[in-house]
Amino acid sequence: MTYQLYYWTGIQGRGEFVRLALEEAGAAYEDVARRKGDRVMETVTGKVDTPSFAPPFLKDGDVVVGQTSAILFYLGPKLGLVPRSPRLRLWIHQIQLTIADCVTEAHDVHHPVGVDLYYEDQKPEAARRAEQFRISRLPLFLDWFETILSRNPAGDTWLVGRKLSYADLSLFQLIEGLSYAFPRLMERQLLAYPKIAELHDRVAERPNIRRYLESDRRLAPNKWDIFRHYSELDE
Amino acid sequence: MTYQLYYWTGIQGRGEFVRLALEEAGAAYEDVARRKGDRVMETVTGKVDTPSFAPPFLKDGDVVVGQTSAILFYLGPKLGLVPRSPRLRLWIHQIQLTIADCVTEAHDVHHPVGVDLYYEDQKPEAARRAEQFRISRLPLFLDWFETILSRNPAGDTWLVGRKLSYADLSLFQLIEGLSYAFPRLMERQLLAYPKIAELHDRVAERPNIRRYLESDRRLAPNKWDIFRHYSELDE
Repeated sequence: MTYQLYYWTGIQGRGEFVRLALEEAGAAYEDVARRKGDRVMETVTGKVDTPSFAPPFLKDGDVVVGQTSAILFYLGPKLGLVPRSPRLRLWIHQIQLTIADCVTEAHDVHHPVGVDLYYEDQKPEAARRAEQFRISRLPLFLDWFETILSRNPAGDTWLVGRKLSYADLSLFQLIEGLSYAFPRLMERQLLAYPKIAELHDRVAERPNIRRYLESDRRLAPNKWDIFRHYSELDE
Repeated sequence: MTYQLYYWTGIQGRGEFVRLALEEAGAAYEDVARRKGDRVMETVTGKVDTPSFAPPFLKDGDVVVGQTSAILFYLGPKLGLVPRSPRLRLWIHQIQLTIADCVTEAHDVHHPVGVDLYYEDQKPEAARRAEQFRISRLPLFLDWFETILSRNPAGDTWLVGRKLSYADLSLFQLIEGLSYAFPRLMERQLLAYPKIAELHDRVAERPNIRRYLESDRRLAPNKWDIFRHYSELDE
């Protein structure tokens, strides 16, 4: 069974959180728009009963599911990336939703006025929002991730239980993105959050993840992506 | 079994999406902070293994779950607010996540620079963001809600299947909030989206919802809430 992932070509974006889960599990999947172009997504959303508001979305037989966190909630059990316990599955989902909130805030740093305008048309606003993000918002999120790692009753190797889940892959990707966008900020911050830094490195060393990161399927970060590096916003 | 809901006192906020589900189902619940004060929330998040990043969160025996959409996903089957089909439960969750995205964008209209600053300290930025929201973002969301209502194979009475789900309650609340914040904009917009407008009215007429809206448990909208009315942002 080949999963069909639909996401914008040319960027990692939110699709990357789904790709990492599929790659870690060694699942067969097709990154459809990369082969057929972005327009192929409209041919799906134009006709199904469950059209996604935006990419990414996943097609798996009769199921067409959108929203990154919902896709991962659906894939988790199929890919062996969650434990059996419904309570822990819900907790992993809750962590994923909080990662998604942080991704949105990291994006809005360079687009505080609106996604339809260029960064160049909202630079003063972005400078103000970046300061808020660096000083106030990002530390709140990092504190929380470090705290929940500390409180995992099974130890602080992974976020939940004693095995890797999709939330660990997503936290890795969040740290990757933030480190690209805010290298100076993150170099300082990660010293204060050793458990997060170690989890990031542990994920990067997983054989399937390492193979993926070295492949040409892993696109380089760039200035059209969610995480963007503007030196003036990093401090 | 009494559910314990934890959310900031004094506003509807994101807690309201959970309250509407509990009220529609006639479930026994306690709005804990309203009785004990906001500080009570720290005593829970300070010690549990699954602390929520932010309110709302729900305590149900051993389960402590945060993130509005995850709370509703958990409550849906218990409150009889979702159908049996796992595929439709996932779809309802996906709709809820998209409503949550729209709520965040509606909030960020008056706080484009950051949630830690007063509106008065970001008025020019808010004016620009409001224009983007009115012209571009809100119509995209409304188009999508109208489309999925049209495509429901069971008819356009409810968003999914032939019975009310928690997503219908949440769409009602979104329209309530937007209509308070942007009365001029929404009066025009709802003429163009009759299915959404009818769904909103249909929810308001549910006996348990009507009783709730008339009770003192339903707080009035105000300028500390997610949806805020600033006349200069409405057009």
